[in-house]
Amino acid sequence: MYSFLNDYSEGAHPRILKALYQLNQEQNMGYGKDVHSDRARAYIKKELKKEDVDIHFISGGTQANLLVISSFLRPHECVISADTGHINVHEAGAIEATGHKVLGLPTKDGKLTPQLISKVLRYHKDEHMVKPKMVYISNTTELGNIYTKAELMALREVCNENDLLFFLDGARLGAALTCDENDVEMWDLANLTDVFYIGGTKNGALLGEALVIIKEDLKKDFSYLIKQRGAMMAKGFLMGIQFEELFRDDLYYKLAKHSNDMASILAKTIRDRGYSFYARPETNQLFPILPNSLIDKLSEEFLFMIDKEVDEEHSVIRLVTSWATSADSVEKFCKAISD
Amino acid sequence: MYSFLNDYSEGAHPRILKALYQLNQEQNMGYGKDVHSDRARAYIKKELKKEDVDIHFISGGTQANLLVISSFLRPHECVISADTGHINVHEAGAIEATGHKVLGLPTKDGKLTPQLISKVLRYHKDEHMVKPKMVYISNTTELGNIYTKAELMALREVCNENDLLFFLDGARLGAALTCDENDVEMWDLANLTDVFYIGGTKNGALLGEALVIIKEDLKKDFSYLIKQRGAMMAKGFLMGIQFEELFRDDLYYKLAKHSNDMASILAKTIRDRGYSFYARPETNQLFPILPNSLIDKLSEEFLFMIDKEVDEEHSVIRLVTSWATSADSVEKFCKAISD
Amino acid sequence: MYSFLNDYSEGAHPRILKALYQLNQEQNMGYGKDVHSDRARAYIKKELKKEDVDIHFISGGTQANLLVISSFLRPHECVISADTGHINVHEAGAIEATGHKVLGLPTKDGKLTPQLISKVLRYHKDEHMVKPKMVYISNTTELGNIYTKAELMALREVCNENDLLFFLDGARLGAALTCDENDVEMWDLANLTDVFYIGGTKNGALLGEALVIIKEDLKKDFSYLIKQRGAMMAKGFLMGIQFEELFRDDLYYKLAKHSNDMASILAKTIRDRGYSFYARPETNQLFPILPNSLIDKLSEEFLFMIDKEVDEEHSVIRLVTSWATSADSVEKFCKAISD
Amino acid sequence: MYSFLNDYSEGAHPRILKALYQLNQEQNMGYGKDVHSDRARAYIKKELKKEDVDIHFISGGTQANLLVISSFLRPHECVISADTGHINVHEAGAIEATGHKVLGLPTKDGKLTPQLISKVLRYHKDEHMVKPKMVYISNTTELGNIYTKAELMALREVCNENDLLFFLDGARLGAALTCDENDVEMWDLANLTDVFYIGGTKNGALLGEALVIIKEDLKKDFSYLIKQRGAMMAKGFLMGIQFEELFRDDLYYKLAKHSNDMASILAKTIRDRGYSFYARPETNQLFPILPNSLIDKLSEEFLFMIDKEVDEEHSVIRLVTSWATSADSVEKFCKAISD
Repeated sequence: MYSFLNDYSEGAHPRILKALYQLNQEQNMGYGKDVHSDRARAYIKKELKKEDVDIHFISGGTQANLLVISSFLRPHECVISADTGHINVHEAGAIEATGHKVLGLPTKDGKLTPQLISKVLRYHKDEHMVKPKMVYISNTTELGNIYTKAELMALREVCNENDLLFFLDGARLGAALTCDENDVEMWDLANLTDVFYIGGTKNGALLGEALVIIKEDLKKDFSYLIKQRGAMMAKGFLMGIQFEELFRDDLYYKLAKHSNDMASILAKTIRDRGYSFYARPETNQLFPILPNSLIDKLSEEFLFMIDKEVDEEHSVIRLVTSWATSADSVEKFCKAISD
Repeated sequence: MYSFLNDYSEGAHPRILKALYQLNQEQNMGYGKDVHSDRARAYIKKELKKEDVDIHFISGGTQANLLVISSFLRPHECVISADTGHINVHEAGAIEATGHKVLGLPTKDGKLTPQLISKVLRYHKDEHMVKPKMVYISNTTELGNIYTKAELMALREVCNENDLLFFLDGARLGAALTCDENDVEMWDLANLTDVFYIGGTKNGALLGEALVIIKEDLKKDFSYLIKQRGAMMAKGFLMGIQFEELFRDDLYYKLAKHSNDMASILAKTIRDRGYSFYARPETNQLFPILPNSLIDKLSEEFLFMIDKEVDEEHSVIRLVTSWATSADSVEKFCKAISD
Repeated sequence: MYSFLNDYSEGAHPRILKALYQLNQEQNMGYGKDVHSDRARAYIKKELKKEDVDIHFISGGTQANLLVISSFLRPHECVISADTGHINVHEAGAIEATGHKVLGLPTKDGKLTPQLISKVLRYHKDEHMVKPKMVYISNTTELGNIYTKAELMALREVCNENDLLFFLDGARLGAALTCDENDVEMWDLANLTDVFYIGGTKNGALLGEALVIIKEDLKKDFSYLIKQRGAMMAKGFLMGIQFEELFRDDLYYKLAKHSNDMASILAKTIRDRGYSFYARPETNQLFPILPNSLIDKLSEEFLFMIDKEVDEEHSVIRLVTSWATSADSVEKFCKAISD
Repeated sequence: MYSFLNDYSEGAHPRILKALYQLNQEQNMGYGKDVHSDRARAYIKKELKKEDVDIHFISGGTQANLLVISSFLRPHECVISADTGHINVHEAGAIEATGHKVLGLPTKDGKLTPQLISKVLRYHKDEHMVKPKMVYISNTTELGNIYTKAELMALREVCNENDLLFFLDGARLGAALTCDENDVEMWDLANLTDVFYIGGTKNGALLGEALVIIKEDLKKDFSYLIKQRGAMMAKGFLMGIQFEELFRDDLYYKLAKHSNDMASILAKTIRDRGYSFYARPETNQLFPILPNSLIDKLSEEFLFMIDKEVDEEHSVIRLVTSWATSADSVEKFCKAISD
């Protein structure tokens, strides 16, 4: 059974594993204060064309999300998210557990707009309601879609006008930045957001997200907060070594590009066979609408998530490709769908 | 500079790294629902001679501590700890951040006793004060000392009598169970505590603590709580693979034993040179009291923590050995202290 | 300017004030452990035809809501509410501040149904999402509507089937139980809910809500939780005296009935003048849709809240009557709307 | 049985009750936005000789404490208190429930000193420990003692030097400011602290503490935080009316002075009979050490708390006088102790 369940089914890209192996006996300082983390930070700053940012390596996405939101909001402040946002549905109430409401807004395609945000701001006008203070988006979104540069700039503007922090969850940022229709560069994010992260777990690392804090007054004491939430790895150098390898050259982008390329082949075949999609295929997550009979047949050979029913005879499934997805397995899936 | 700063300065034991390497391309289910985690659980249950326990792999000690305490206490309940306990001083308020008071009791040697606990219980008698509901100990303690079986049994008894949960932090459990004076077996803990963990991060794993929930009514819904605190690793199988390797045979004990052996050599030499210790040397953390001039000299060749001043001319330092400490480096240190 | 802004614009009903005056110099035990609180409890138990309930007096509605929800849920559990529910919109994130998500469901009329709840339960099926554990309703609702006995029984059933706690916010319970179309008795609530409260603040008391805990295993240690949230009044006997007076005879119902009667006169006049309502008028909160020009005119003589725009020329206003609303002021309003 | 249990056994001073009675039918805005609250604020500002402070009326001391501390600290920051401080022992973990550690320091007499604070600051030096950010004191202390102006100035200085907020719990501020040895004026507090409150509950009001926020950047959005913690009274004007009456002239001081005077008579008699005190008698809380046989005898006529055993034959009791304590009852107690 080949798995298209997610992009974290395998270990790490061989180059990353090799780096870990070679440095295994080297003694390093704990808690991310080691030379590899420092080198990884330097590579990422270079990529961002910006020196005055703080970079912390965090072990996972939910951890990064709850850490950012709870660190930067006062108790009465809340975060605005698409109602499909990861923080709103798939983190078991992690944000609320730190004391903050998530205002989940219905959207057409999982993407927030200035209009949606403005409407919420007009409604939340006195001290009997929570005070919106942060905008959370994910890129790619939970439906595999991306934000254009123009869209990000418009969100930045509404944040500026309303004194809102702008936070981008980049658990799948690689996939976003390497897809065909993308017009955003990594360094744009250092100008457009206040804080964002570069996902490693879903793009070839064993684990790790590189959290970038851009806004000056968010930087203070962040290490305390990492420690307090249990997010400070003793052997933080393990994440340093991995990001050093990912950003030493263009490995990070190559892995994401491969993932998108594999998805493109799947998407083209599915479309060619006459099937439509629940969300527009752009990156490494695909949501084709297939007949249940076909889904049953595919399930004999492949693992994937059945997302929801469309009607009595059709359902949406989710297919996810990764840095590790082989051309061979993609070919087999295409063949299976075509028979 | 050779480091005796801690027991998490290197990567993983070669056998563990090899296992990760060999299984790297294998597809596994996410979130700890993989076959390796299951096998690791089976090995540990066998070691515990007990089948009806729940085992979850958590990425670090602070994470495990805050997760256990916040999951099992109601809002008004608190945890009793030695005032030197990790949760009381070295977790940046992680427990309080989840809403619970830590009652830190002054102790002679970092170890709780039934007498200390009973005194606290007598004092906390009405609803104007927090209600003690859990006893937290660490074995080895933060000073490197161990609990005897008789001491653990006495704590179990006071917990039974007062409806208290008994939680053992085993971040350095390997060192405790393999030191010369130990009379506790791993399986004793499954009978004596309600929940404890087996530390991997400080005993040869890249990361990971195996949390064992023994008491039946603590088991329910624990996965939700792991997810909510950001402690659910996407690639949970990485911890499964490591614990599978550690408990497939006696590797876990061998690594800890080596760590203690290296410390014994250091301790003997230090004592032979006429120096005393702040805490009795038993395991892989040593707290010798040395002249400041000697400390300065040692600092030229070795990294270690200076713990506190004793008088104007003497200080306590902390030396930590690990599974990776070489006999050669120990010899060099012994020579340096003797010259 | 006469105010129809709310039902807490005046002090207390004269009988309550008189009781406070007469008992002013009497010494009483603190924290609700006084004879008046005990007598009030006895009166309420008699009213509920049930002895084995715990009754605590709490100073306000938000306080009572956050206390109940945070005391009875584990960290990963959430509460289901209408999206118009007080806890979801008008408590500044009070519930989330205690760590719990509020699942706010869109409803037709501010009332939850078994269908809505079942749909949510089907969707929340694994540990990546919060776990629904409590149903919260308010009676009257925030739109002034009431639940019928059949509706409450149906909700009880869905709670039983799914192991959910059923919590009724009775900040305006008096208005609900004394309106014409009501078929619920106070004692029904002791059989249908697990916990509910009888609002005093909005029905003639200076302050105070009588919280009734019915389900046995929710009772333990509740005093600790009251204290911890800052909700334990030093002079708790003040609330005891007030509820003693409210339930010594039928004063509680009389005050609420008066409030509804005053609203009925307003509603009839408004309807007779040809205006419609945003929500069906049933109790002491009315939501007529009026022309903006009329609203402007009324604003010269009366205070009321403008709730929302309907179209360019019409808006919804909220009129609230209380135990203190005079027939004279109602007559004046009716005249003003008719001129 | 006459009660010396506490200073909140009776209702309100007759002048306060009369004011409530006279204004009972007056319509007022809710949530503290009424004219009486405004007038009370004006009186207090005049008393403080300072206009640019924010004043909020809060229903009780624990409520005020948890509100202040949770509003002004970031998650990793903690508050320093005497270990006898109300927040450390007698609020059922209210501060920790909002996420913050209380560092309770052993003191000689319940009073913090710059030396004690500096020692704690030196120890808390990295991100593995909580970060001290606020100093909490109570005046009078929990043992009935007061801070001199010089002591407060020294604390202010250590706060300034270390960027700490200075918070004074004035639940019994009246007693502190009117005792014989006091050299602090109410307006000094507006220059020396960042935030403090003026206790009403324990000095003649039904309920209410006037919270004064002095430091500019603490003022923002405080109403949201009051609401969120359930501390916003619907009929906030009730507290406004009471503080208006207390500060319209010198009633607040008169009531506190009476309380201290009654205690002085008791203290003198106790001392004259040859008994000593556990804490120096200064205000309305006395802690005499009496023979158990005498305590038994007194218990037949009077209610008071037995604080702790001193030896087999002696115990410390607590006697509290109030604005309502009659000269007659004091005389009776003196007689009883002398017989």
